[in-house]
Amino acid sequence: MNIIPVILSGGSGTRLWPVSRPERPKQLLPLTSDETMLQLTVGRTRGYAGATLSNPIVVANAAHSSIIDEQLQMSGVDDYLLILEPIGRNTAPAIALAAFEANPSDLMLVMPSDHIIAKLPAFHEAITSALPLVEQGWLVTFGITPDAPETGYGYIQMGKACGNGVNEVARFVEKPDSENAARMLSEGSHVWNAGIFLFRADAYLRALERHQPEMLNATKQSLERSIRSGKHLFPDRDAFAQCPSDSVDYAILEREGLAACVPVDMGWSDVGSWDSLHSVSLQDPSGNAVRGDNLLIGASNCLVHSDGPRVTLVDVDDLIVVVAQGDVMILKRGESQKVRIVTEKLKKIP
Amino acid sequence: MNIIPVILSGGSGTRLWPVSRPERPKQLLPLTSDETMLQLTVGRTRGYAGATLSNPIVVANAAHSSIIDEQLQMSGVDDYLLILEPIGRNTAPAIALAAFEANPSDLMLVMPSDHIIAKLPAFHEAITSALPLVEQGWLVTFGITPDAPETGYGYIQMGKACGNGVNEVARFVEKPDSENAARMLSEGSHVWNAGIFLFRADAYLRALERHQPEMLNATKQSLERSIRSGKHLFPDRDAFAQCPSDSVDYAILEREGLAACVPVDMGWSDVGSWDSLHSVSLQDPSGNAVRGDNLLIGASNCLVHSDGPRVTLVDVDDLIVVVAQGDVMILKRGESQKVRIVTEKLKKIP
Repeated sequence: MNIIPVILSGGSGTRLWPVSRPERPKQLLPLTSDETMLQLTVGRTRGYAGATLSNPIVVANAAHSSIIDEQLQMSGVDDYLLILEPIGRNTAPAIALAAFEANPSDLMLVMPSDHIIAKLPAFHEAITSALPLVEQGWLVTFGITPDAPETGYGYIQMGKACGNGVNEVARFVEKPDSENAARMLSEGSHVWNAGIFLFRADAYLRALERHQPEMLNATKQSLERSIRSGKHLFPDRDAFAQCPSDSVDYAILEREGLAACVPVDMGWSDVGSWDSLHSVSLQDPSGNAVRGDNLLIGASNCLVHSDGPRVTLVDVDDLIVVVAQGDVMILKRGESQKVRIVTEKLKKIP
Repeated sequence: MNIIPVILSGGSGTRLWPVSRPERPKQLLPLTSDETMLQLTVGRTRGYAGATLSNPIVVANAAHSSIIDEQLQMSGVDDYLLILEPIGRNTAPAIALAAFEANPSDLMLVMPSDHIIAKLPAFHEAITSALPLVEQGWLVTFGITPDAPETGYGYIQMGKACGNGVNEVARFVEKPDSENAARMLSEGSHVWNAGIFLFRADAYLRALERHQPEMLNATKQSLERSIRSGKHLFPDRDAFAQCPSDSVDYAILEREGLAACVPVDMGWSDVGSWDSLHSVSLQDPSGNAVRGDNLLIGASNCLVHSDGPRVTLVDVDDLIVVVAQGDVMILKRGESQKVRIVTEKLKKIP
């Protein structure tokens, strides 16, 4: 058995503004360590002993090619394939591009590039649990055992067991309201959808043929007319632009009979907000998490993230302070979803 | 009668760090308006009709000569004398240097360069009240009618009336503790010492001769050996270094029989802290005072002062946010005296 790490770097989120911006989104930034989220993701399969590992395939926005090359090489990853999308078409087509580049019997371990997983042994065990079904052609997703009624994540409702530590996927649930989130948490049998998948390349392409033939054709054509240059693969823009845009969860897994879920508790977070970053970061005894030059006097439960300027805090509590690229943002901890309001307001300023 | 505005720009305070620094102290910064505190001070006698006005004399740290030239010229002040101290010796010697440059019968209106006066008509009236005694050789100071038991200011205890709206100076009181401040406020007859004075040049020099002959000799010698270059006057360093260092209040006025005080309510502040700047600044309906590019969403009672980077506040209250020269300082409103702790800690960082 051979696993290809397939890393999806399509995001351009602005939820971590002013650090994360379209030209350098979250996955290309060092947020939780000196390594960027992408670099951490590339390192996530190191030491996995349950299968052989091939060179990774990274699927990314063409605008980020040189940053990604630089970051992979800094991580000591010299051999990889970088598929550079001319346009974003969500995850199902991105994975299809990678599947065509894999051998049919290769296992594709699909990972978003902008999440963190604190407990790698648990992740590796979950992969091992998935292998028997994956070998039989199942499409497997890894679901995070929830510990709070999160409304910021999608959920997966699991059905009956179909293997050791593996359950059938009953359905995918979009981000719920708090009432439904609480209900799912108390019912059990629901896990967070982390967007991490494992399947054989041929199984994915067959599922694509069954459920999304138009997607299969468009991605195939965009590769037939693609340009290759060293480690870079440029799918044809016109063909790829014809491709329907949808996520692998909804376009494929939800329609697929052989879809399974491995529930796992592995210290996962999508670091989807500054509050989330604060909670997953190393904190001092006063609850402060800091990156960058700083001086804290009588501060507690603050997140400080600076790309240069020194930040001094005196007698303040529960603040998120982000200094990046000529912007200083200060917001109350617990309110970081309001970054969206900020970016929307700033768009309107000429 | 002829008045010479004598502006003292000797301060190098760090209470407004990180904006105010030795190389560009408070008086050379635009804090309350687009004009710097020095520029506001130079404009403070404009329109005064009670006497003729001569070109100003500015006494400053030699290190600031070009900034001061630039700021005076930007304010349309082309004719002035800039006395550049090789070393700081407090206010009594600084005023002596200016007194030697004045005609004996000239009136010197001595003003610190880093205060604000919101009600200029009241200031001008107070000057007029002082003129009769000043003409007779009295040394007059202007005392601010207190409206709070301030512990950050020195006080002047006034004695019996010696003119219309003028009282004798009984004694100067150093910055009091809060108990004594409350007592003085309730007793009345105490005013804040604003460091603003009016006297004839010859009266000042005679007082100096009586009470501080060593100071008189040292300043005189430093001028005899001085260098003149255009509008610049450089007193001799060695002679000036021999001069005792003391304030005009304690070295002269407290020892002088003919010392009077004009109490005045003129919207004065020494802007001695970020809290003080917040309280004297124009505020929006939510109590925010802002300078520089900013976006405020649900913020209240905040001071924002930025020399460039845009500052965004979301759902925060009672913060002082200062962004200057590669530093971002955030402190709780009401605690801005703690800037001293910050600057002391930073000194220790290599």
